[in-house]
Amino acid sequence: MIEKLNMTMLTDFYEITMANGYFKTGMANDTAYFDMFFRDIPDGGGFAIMAGVEQVAEYMQNLEFTDDDIEYLRKKDMFDSRFLEYLRNFRFVCDVWTVPEGTPIFPGEPIITVRGPVIQAQFVETMVLLLVNHQTLIATKANRIVRAAKGRGIMEFGTRRAHGVSAAVYGARAAYIGGCMGTACTVSDRDYGIDALGTMAHSWVQMYPDEDTAFRKYAEIYPDNCVLLVDTYNVLKSGVPAAIRVFRDMKPEKMGIRIDSGDVSYLTKQARKMLDDAGLQECTIVVSNSLDEYIIEDVIQQGACIDSFGVGERLITASSSPVFGGVYKLSALEKDGDMIPKMKISENIGKITNPGFKTLYRFYDKDSNQCKADLIALDEEPAPSGDEFEIFDPIAPWKRKTLRNFYVKNIRVQLFDKGKLVYKLPAVDEIRSYCARQVGDLWDEMLRFENPQTYYVDLSQRLYELKQEIIREHNR
Amino acid sequence: MIEKLNMTMLTDFYEITMANGYFKTGMANDTAYFDMFFRDIPDGGGFAIMAGVEQVAEYMQNLEFTDDDIEYLRKKDMFDSRFLEYLRNFRFVCDVWTVPEGTPIFPGEPIITVRGPVIQAQFVETMVLLLVNHQTLIATKANRIVRAAKGRGIMEFGTRRAHGVSAAVYGARAAYIGGCMGTACTVSDRDYGIDALGTMAHSWVQMYPDEDTAFRKYAEIYPDNCVLLVDTYNVLKSGVPAAIRVFRDMKPEKMGIRIDSGDVSYLTKQARKMLDDAGLQECTIVVSNSLDEYIIEDVIQQGACIDSFGVGERLITASSSPVFGGVYKLSALEKDGDMIPKMKISENIGKITNPGFKTLYRFYDKDSNQCKADLIALDEEPAPSGDEFEIFDPIAPWKRKTLRNFYVKNIRVQLFDKGKLVYKLPAVDEIRSYCARQVGDLWDEMLRFENPQTYYVDLSQRLYELKQEIIREHNR
Repeated sequence: MIEKLNMTMLTDFYEITMANGYFKTGMANDTAYFDMFFRDIPDGGGFAIMAGVEQVAEYMQNLEFTDDDIEYLRKKDMFDSRFLEYLRNFRFVCDVWTVPEGTPIFPGEPIITVRGPVIQAQFVETMVLLLVNHQTLIATKANRIVRAAKGRGIMEFGTRRAHGVSAAVYGARAAYIGGCMGTACTVSDRDYGIDALGTMAHSWVQMYPDEDTAFRKYAEIYPDNCVLLVDTYNVLKSGVPAAIRVFRDMKPEKMGIRIDSGDVSYLTKQARKMLDDAGLQECTIVVSNSLDEYIIEDVIQQGACIDSFGVGERLITASSSPVFGGVYKLSALEKDGDMIPKMKISENIGKITNPGFKTLYRFYDKDSNQCKADLIALDEEPAPSGDEFEIFDPIAPWKRKTLRNFYVKNIRVQLFDKGKLVYKLPAVDEIRSYCARQVGDLWDEMLRFENPQTYYVDLSQRLYELKQEIIREHNR
Repeated sequence: MIEKLNMTMLTDFYEITMANGYFKTGMANDTAYFDMFFRDIPDGGGFAIMAGVEQVAEYMQNLEFTDDDIEYLRKKDMFDSRFLEYLRNFRFVCDVWTVPEGTPIFPGEPIITVRGPVIQAQFVETMVLLLVNHQTLIATKANRIVRAAKGRGIMEFGTRRAHGVSAAVYGARAAYIGGCMGTACTVSDRDYGIDALGTMAHSWVQMYPDEDTAFRKYAEIYPDNCVLLVDTYNVLKSGVPAAIRVFRDMKPEKMGIRIDSGDVSYLTKQARKMLDDAGLQECTIVVSNSLDEYIIEDVIQQGACIDSFGVGERLITASSSPVFGGVYKLSALEKDGDMIPKMKISENIGKITNPGFKTLYRFYDKDSNQCKADLIALDEEPAPSGDEFEIFDPIAPWKRKTLRNFYVKNIRVQLFDKGKLVYKLPAVDEIRSYCARQVGDLWDEMLRFENPQTYYVDLSQRLYELKQEIIREHNR
């Protein structure tokens, strides 16, 4: 809905100053390789969930500078007129590889690679990061919350606290990919088919003289699915008793109560008892009040009687860890037919990048299908094969492990071939199921919220050696 | 750019179920009053900065259900066909009052009031909250960061870490209102005239054989304003010396260096000395590396030599407190010509709302123009006047204070009159200057980041009595 617009000018200004620079120094068409990767998993979790690729594809398909854009840039009085002419005729011609949406991803992995004329491959940096950082952040958070609920449904209820319109719409999409069952956001239903649900605010109850009247009116209008908000005045003294009276009289097909304040552990246990005593075992209880994975885990532990949760601000803003820090770095350059691997050499060992045109393999156990390790390798290398494969920790290379009884998958797909979309973007339902299966293939120890087991992400021997060689070269 | 689109369907689904409900119970045209207010200031600060009103106005002006929207709703098979006909002919007719953008605001204050047919006044809840919560959050955070910099410039650099497209564009707008001097986000410059700046990424430096070449190429192309990124390899050993060589040879009109990693306090002091020793006193130093108000305050305290800051992810996500919790509550109802004040009565004293159609006064000192206190009063009351005015704490009404030597302003304006925009929306530059002046009128003790002085926000005697009366009534 929104990114289908032309977002070409949504870019850091330096992308344009650099583009003009490459144009003027005659390097515009040198082929460059850029990788998107990230360094830290939000909330100290065990993995992140890739998301936002569909929006990246839409963005790249719609790249076009309008006359107004050109005029705006001309007025800056800093860009070459031939460069502006180039922009006017801009046609995206890059190759792009990506990890599909819904896949568990890990620090350091090349989750997106863009190859093409440096003027283009550099230019798309800002939006690639913006789109993937945002949705990956929310899908990752949603998956944590969904896991905390242990099979109970999670509804995304955060629209009003989202950071703007697209944070609401694409946040709902990402939350669904992460495993939420639906959203309060109507437009995400209309445009992405993510079930939108919602019944009443406190104001509905206040508009009528008392709860009985408000509930009765609602049940008359919505006899098929009647979820009543019972905490406008007092949950146990007035809200639940009124709901029980109305449910008994009116017998809606589906019935539920929602509690949006107070101690949900205590209140839901009491409410459950009152409903059961009234013979309303089929009435469900929904809870929604500043929830996150920690609170949900706690109240379930305490025996709270909750059938589903509405999670708002802490999901839609990923409030405990609201930044997904994906970066986009130059990894290689083709110059006169030669491939020159590029690497950022930092004092900080964790900030050193991986050089060259790379790809990404995942090892699975042949019997259990469980993920064993990932391997970042140079694209030109053959895929790992055979009965045994030795991996090692690239920071501590003496730590070695031999994998056996495995099969290997290249977990990246090609998204664009010379500027043409060549990947069939899956529907959001498919992505959601794929995500659930992939997370199911991880070790249980990686699913912990605190101090999860660190997954193995190793470098191929050749990539490791290339890296050492460049460091030695640099130090000379 | 984005909210100029029709955002009618960006709404919590329950707004539509309630609207259909009011339609079917014959209450659709009962006049209701809703207030937007908030309970907590992000980061435990002394005040928030109102923002997002322009986008609320655009939203309300563009409210319209398309045929596709109607068709989508019809397929839900839960809405009355006459209600859908009403939506097809929807015309916004509400009255709206707001605190202007850039104004310091405080918990409990009616920062927006919507009066109109309940079916409409309720419906706009989601977007009013979404738009104002987001921009107010960012303007408030930006203002903290700007204050920490004590006159040094702050550039908003967060586009790539924003929660989606509108978080980037409107985040840049809000950051500018809060006092930033510009942004990296090109589209915010094109559409809002917020200066976009930016020079080069590490990749620019890596594209050339060495820093000297990369810097020299850049200085050739941009001799007017040449800011060189000096931390690709080693700031003090290679980056700054290379920059000095290039500046001396090429003499760009404006020159600066940017440091994006490492200990910026140490590095900038050393770099300043090297630049000064080279006779480049006019070369500025820009710093950008996961900054926020606390780090900026610290490094300035330590004598870091910094002329301006680029602040990214911690500003654009307000990462230390990423939720602005504005709510939208029913405050009154007109029924057969009578005004019925409405109030949410909670066990939690802080969650009790203020009933009735209200307005908001600010008391200023006649001599210093400093803000003394705010007063929430019923709209029908005369404005406070005279030489003395007694205010009291509504939670602890025995705490009283007599104001003297004051003048009073009603700090709200009417935004819509029967659905027509009647307020001239100021340009973002005007809002930014207004904000700076208003913050300048606050007590110094309110500007502290930690444990600031709490500003007085009191209720008029009549509003207080009305509230007590409703509570007594409810308890009977």
